Amino acid sequence: MADIITELQEALGSDKVLSSPVDLIAYSFDGTFEQHVPDVVVLPETNEETAAVVRVASRYGLPVVPRGMSSGLAGGSIPMRGGIVLSLTRMNRILEIDRENMTATVQAGVVTADLQAEVEKLGLFYPPDPSSNRQSTIGGNVACNAGGPRCLKYGVTENYVLGLTVVLADGCILRTGGKAIKYVTGFNIDQLFVGSEGMLGIITEVILRLLARPPYARTALVHFPTLDDAGRSVQAVLTRGLVPAAMELLDETAIACIEEATHLGLPLDVEALLVVESDGADEQSVQREIEAIADICLRTGASRVDVARSEEERADLWRARRSVSPSLARKAPNKLGEDITVPRSAIPEAIRRIKAISAAYGLPIVIFGHAGDGNLHPNILFDRRDPAQREKVERMVGEIFQVALDLGGTLSGEHGIGTFKLPYMRQALGPTSINIQWRIKQALDPQNILNPGKVLPDLADR
Amino acid sequence: MADIITELQEALGSDKVLSSPVDLIAYSFDGTFEQHVPDVVVLPETNEETAAVVRVASRYGLPVVPRGMSSGLAGGSIPMRGGIVLSLTRMNRILEIDRENMTATVQAGVVTADLQAEVEKLGLFYPPDPSSNRQSTIGGNVACNAGGPRCLKYGVTENYVLGLTVVLADGCILRTGGKAIKYVTGFNIDQLFVGSEGMLGIITEVILRLLARPPYARTALVHFPTLDDAGRSVQAVLTRGLVPAAMELLDETAIACIEEATHLGLPLDVEALLVVESDGADEQSVQREIEAIADICLRTGASRVDVARSEEERADLWRARRSVSPSLARKAPNKLGEDITVPRSAIPEAIRRIKAISAAYGLPIVIFGHAGDGNLHPNILFDRRDPAQREKVERMVGEIFQVALDLGGTLSGEHGIGTFKLPYMRQALGPTSINIQWRIKQALDPQNILNPGKVLPDLADR
Repeated sequence: MADIITELQEALGSDKVLSSPVDLIAYSFDGTFEQHVPDVVVLPETNEETAAVVRVASRYGLPVVPRGMSSGLAGGSIPMRGGIVLSLTRMNRILEIDRENMTATVQAGVVTADLQAEVEKLGLFYPPDPSSNRQSTIGGNVACNAGGPRCLKYGVTENYVLGLTVVLADGCILRTGGKAIKYVTGFNIDQLFVGSEGMLGIITEVILRLLARPPYARTALVHFPTLDDAGRSVQAVLTRGLVPAAMELLDETAIACIEEATHLGLPLDVEALLVVESDGADEQSVQREIEAIADICLRTGASRVDVARSEEERADLWRARRSVSPSLARKAPNKLGEDITVPRSAIPEAIRRIKAISAAYGLPIVIFGHAGDGNLHPNILFDRRDPAQREKVERMVGEIFQVALDLGGTLSGEHGIGTFKLPYMRQALGPTSINIQWRIKQALDPQNILNPGKVLPDLADR
Repeated sequence: MADIITELQEALGSDKVLSSPVDLIAYSFDGTFEQHVPDVVVLPETNEETAAVVRVASRYGLPVVPRGMSSGLAGGSIPMRGGIVLSLTRMNRILEIDRENMTATVQAGVVTADLQAEVEKLGLFYPPDPSSNRQSTIGGNVACNAGGPRCLKYGVTENYVLGLTVVLADGCILRTGGKAIKYVTGFNIDQLFVGSEGMLGIITEVILRLLARPPYARTALVHFPTLDDAGRSVQAVLTRGLVPAAMELLDETAIACIEEATHLGLPLDVEALLVVESDGADEQSVQREIEAIADICLRTGASRVDVARSEEERADLWRARRSVSPSLARKAPNKLGEDITVPRSAIPEAIRRIKAISAAYGLPIVIFGHAGDGNLHPNILFDRRDPAQREKVERMVGEIFQVALDLGGTLSGEHGIGTFKLPYMRQALGPTSINIQWRIKQALDPQNILNPGKVLPDLADR
């Protein structure tokens, strides 16, 4: 290992190579409670330096685990097999914002909210808004195909990726795509790298499509005595051709947690709340859309609709939605947040079954998520120090995934598979798909050095 | 070959295997003037029959060329190396329209316009609208990632593909994706098959996302004394945050051809026309949007805006746009239509350079296309019987592609590469990308039997 560290120091300069125990521990975590210490951490600042690291790794057959800001929720950036953690945080420059073509070219380490703030100054808009957007990076967002509340109307990260620079497993630098919006010139390589969780190449630069910033938004809080009514209202709104920017669901457990933490005055006598937002370029249309949505909800079982009357009230509603995750920390020492998706119509049934799992095991499950997209985040609250609870949680997770698969959904809508959901991949995808994915992995990374041990079940284990 | 035909007849039944010279000639064409006769044509009706054909082909190392309705404009479905043409036209059933989840599950051979008509009866909407939509199939649309005028607002075919059934080169049947809208569970395999032009697998079924049908639309014809003003107006509208459904450009040559063929009363004293359409769920918003667009255009150099006052006038405008291609047939024995894309801001410069190419060679080039997307269709008019013109056309095509690449664009936005653009791929993508694409091809089709000789330059030729 000492030789490898020396080689890396020669390639990058010693200030970009970390190997003290303290530094290694700092790069051993992500947003989960999983952990594994790497052998060395590198902080390249250019494509060429990134390529040099990969060439060293290739020569020694050593794992390279790319990493942004470590906010991942699936263990995807944890170096489970040691090796080199390649942090992209020093590649954090916005290289260009092209106002005419409405594109941004950024290095992978740019924090998503930083990019959003910069483009908004110019009247532009980068829609994908994972809750982690003040921490997570564009590179990580692309690697996980990140979503967020606004993705209901605006689509997920993949819909904004026009081009990529990727360091491949052999240290070559691939540039693919460009500023042209439509592109059918060879295989859809860009989209293959989107969501590949660092296993096919290291994304170092991204060309993103931008939109014009919608100047108007109206937000409503809709009360539902029953969860079924909330589900039916989501369906009714969307099949009517209305396209709200977001339709976020909070179940009664989530509401109670938020209210306990924030005292925002949320109702505690409902089974569900929807936070619904309309936005657009035309103030009257936005107003009419939120009114139409309110009407539909009231006719489909909502007991009450409060449309925010000021920017302050609107901010409160979003604060409520965003504080779900932090507020759970007050309720239990640990939480395990899942990210299942189901066909939209199956949301009420999915929630019923998840509540039954919670009841059967006696551990609370808080449910919230992007109801318009069928993407739910059931969070199991527990105490890791209790082995009995840990064992329960493992079984509960398996059952939650089974609910998603039984209802025609899948394991992850926006967090990715990482290490946490890997044991369920064979069942989710079946042998033909796993086989094809391994063949692609082997074609692009024959030594299996790029983020090994993630996403795909081991070949030996087939 | 007789043995192979016998095997295919045993696998499918003899009514699904064609081998008479007349039948073979019928399956030797596509929408170009290229042609090559296959050895045999098969018409499977199920996934299993398709898989059986591929297994026979694999055993004999014979090419299998999948084909929908042969409207392709790049030679992609022509069996250039003989072998088996696998027509998907008998797999033309709509398997399910799920109103609640707004999805359609269809066999690959369903004609796009037929699907659109069916879903529209239910108030639903499948946006991608290639001009060929009354002929071309969903399978072909997916294989070429088809676009169309409405894709400015609604996105191209890839944005609607939720899941696929694909027969792989070894005869395995892969099912991937599903009805869940968000999906980050393993590599983005669906999107790898989109636009792969039959080279990675044979797409037999598709799960498509649908929208609610926008009930209101307003359409305007905008006159521009200069092409630059048209280009600037497109930019101005889109950067203002307005999202028209379509912004279609016709240059003066295109206008003259259409007017000669249709006598619709188009102006002959302008350099460009834009056909602009707004649509949506709210009548007043649609009206206000088209008015806002008209305002912006008038302030950015338009000399006149005519908003269609009736459904009949609107139909006339679209008839004008759609009759470009057929009207060219009156002007010259042959046309070669290209499909370049450039960053949107480069449209005026691209058109200027293409006009210079036309002037230099003395052959007319008609330019029209999807200006909002930067996707242009320069059509060279010529007479194939004249070897001098043929030779000129070849050089002109090379120069047109050079314009696209020099301006940061690419060879194809919605037609694909097929055989026609293959000679330009090395220059367009560079060796690293070609190399990666071959590795993926070899991983999925090690015998190179799926539509060989298309898209990627020969390995031997690297």
